[in-house]
Amino acid sequence: MPNAGYPDVIKKVSDCISSEQKTKVSENNIVMTSGAGGALNTVLKTLINSGDNIIASIPCFMEYKFYCDNHGGELKLVNGKADFNLDIDTIEQAITKDTVAIIINSPNNPSGRIYPQETIDSLALMLEVKSSEIGRTLYLISDEPYRKIVYDDVTVPSIMDAYKNSIVCTSYSKDLSIPGERIGWLTVNPEAEDYTNLINGIILCNRILGYVNAPALMQRTIAELQGVSVDIDLYKKKRDYLAEKLAQFGYRFRIPEGTFYFFIEAPGGDDMKIVDLLKDERILVVPGRGFGLPGYFRIAYCVEDSVIEGSMAGFKRTAEKSGLKQDDK
Amino acid sequence: MPNAGYPDVIKKVSDCISSEQKTKVSENNIVMTSGAGGALNTVLKTLINSGDNIIASIPCFMEYKFYCDNHGGELKLVNGKADFNLDIDTIEQAITKDTVAIIINSPNNPSGRIYPQETIDSLALMLEVKSSEIGRTLYLISDEPYRKIVYDDVTVPSIMDAYKNSIVCTSYSKDLSIPGERIGWLTVNPEAEDYTNLINGIILCNRILGYVNAPALMQRTIAELQGVSVDIDLYKKKRDYLAEKLAQFGYRFRIPEGTFYFFIEAPGGDDMKIVDLLKDERILVVPGRGFGLPGYFRIAYCVEDSVIEGSMAGFKRTAEKSGLKQDDK
Repeated sequence: MPNAGYPDVIKKVSDCISSEQKTKVSENNIVMTSGAGGALNTVLKTLINSGDNIIASIPCFMEYKFYCDNHGGELKLVNGKADFNLDIDTIEQAITKDTVAIIINSPNNPSGRIYPQETIDSLALMLEVKSSEIGRTLYLISDEPYRKIVYDDVTVPSIMDAYKNSIVCTSYSKDLSIPGERIGWLTVNPEAEDYTNLINGIILCNRILGYVNAPALMQRTIAELQGVSVDIDLYKKKRDYLAEKLAQFGYRFRIPEGTFYFFIEAPGGDDMKIVDLLKDERILVVPGRGFGLPGYFRIAYCVEDSVIEGSMAGFKRTAEKSGLKQDDK
Repeated sequence: MPNAGYPDVIKKVSDCISSEQKTKVSENNIVMTSGAGGALNTVLKTLINSGDNIIASIPCFMEYKFYCDNHGGELKLVNGKADFNLDIDTIEQAITKDTVAIIINSPNNPSGRIYPQETIDSLALMLEVKSSEIGRTLYLISDEPYRKIVYDDVTVPSIMDAYKNSIVCTSYSKDLSIPGERIGWLTVNPEAEDYTNLINGIILCNRILGYVNAPALMQRTIAELQGVSVDIDLYKKKRDYLAEKLAQFGYRFRIPEGTFYFFIEAPGGDDMKIVDLLKDERILVVPGRGFGLPGYFRIAYCVEDSVIEGSMAGFKRTAEKSGLKQDDK
């Protein structure tokens, strides 16, 4: 097959992306990839010259740091807002003449935050202004594996519709619940300034990084599953149950709009301490510093209901030990 | 699953490797990979420090050049012998204090050569002596996707049995005839000097390069196919047919001991000219310069018998046009 993937598979994927991204995407704009991790490494290898930097907003998926370093780039982390939204001003201030791209991830791992349309529009406007200011194209890379895991009829804004120099990367692992398979895609905005070099470079890099092409059988499989996802209501039920119980126990958090994570304030601000206390209860959570933001911890609720229910006593005891004030109503 | 792969899959693979490599390999010594390309990139990222060089003998698979460059290394090509065997002296002369590894590929793409046991033993001895001389461990990386595609009861010598600082990489694409799937493995010799750092580094690099883990379903598939290969007799029949016919037409070549390639002298030494002449006959071959050795061209015979038979008239006409002396016996 061509290194970009089977043409008939790409055709089906392009129809689905065009509708999701409100942007006409053709077969030539897409590369099938070894998941989102493969897509991001391919894009970063293509974009980065040694010494370039890439900006991301915390909290975020920390593998980005390796992915940039792999190709001679440096990930610069900037603070987000208290509600986990992007802070466009801090991103703007972090941009230098060596900045090549911004990576965003919405719905966000670990916060569950979806960046609203007006934030995306402000980001796009800032990037356009800043690109002319520094005389260099700033790319917006959107890592979107949770686009379909969203609740309460919110929509995830289209990145390609908002900003022309954009690249979207994703994986089917979350929305089809096939972690362990390595299948995803990337698409380059056909309006991007250096479009032809960019897509040709990406196809070459996908090959020479040793991915060669996305696994053949899984390409054929996902071609038949365009627009499909696992039953999101099952996740919503888990989210709502956890939100009610954890709030009752005194934990403080923002209700996630998407993903299957809660990002919760660590009692007393000590993320390692709460991780240890919960471990004593046989509950495994991730410290916020693993996402660049100590003072929080992450729960993943992509587990059986019985596991979630079984963990409630442990969460309650830990809340009490940590001096959280229980809501007795 | 662990990033190295499913433990039950690795167990089955380890039994098969132990027998093939005449070296006891345990579950801890193996990482399931995204094919041989994924395995090689993972190993090279782990071994290379910026500025290091890696040595390979021509003719060879030229993607090695990219694979080294991806991680800040430089591939140094050295001449092999006229019969496509390794020339241990030229390899020795190419080694510098910046050399980190030698990559070999046997059975070889494009020559079909299997390096004999005494060559592997001489290579191993030279590497041991040279390692102490430069005060640095020299690794031997063996890329072995064609190990099972061999003819006439020849055996491919074990690299792990011959040299302790060795790493074997492979793919199931050729022996199970599943090109396009991304499934293979690498194994680090448990006797390697810096074994623990090496295997831990490799598992990390496999993750952070974005492979994350080898595709899950294909891991489970190949676990049930250990020791199995496609019917090699079908390839042997094609090889023997081609060997007879091409010799009759006046082409000069060494009979391949393995793989599904012939590497043939270009008439007059001009590889681009013969490629063009054959293209006019709708026959696609690869110029030797694509493997570092102009003056030859490669035929791949992993095609239907009807395609091979249908190409004979074109090969004959091209031989005549090129002034080759036909054998009329």
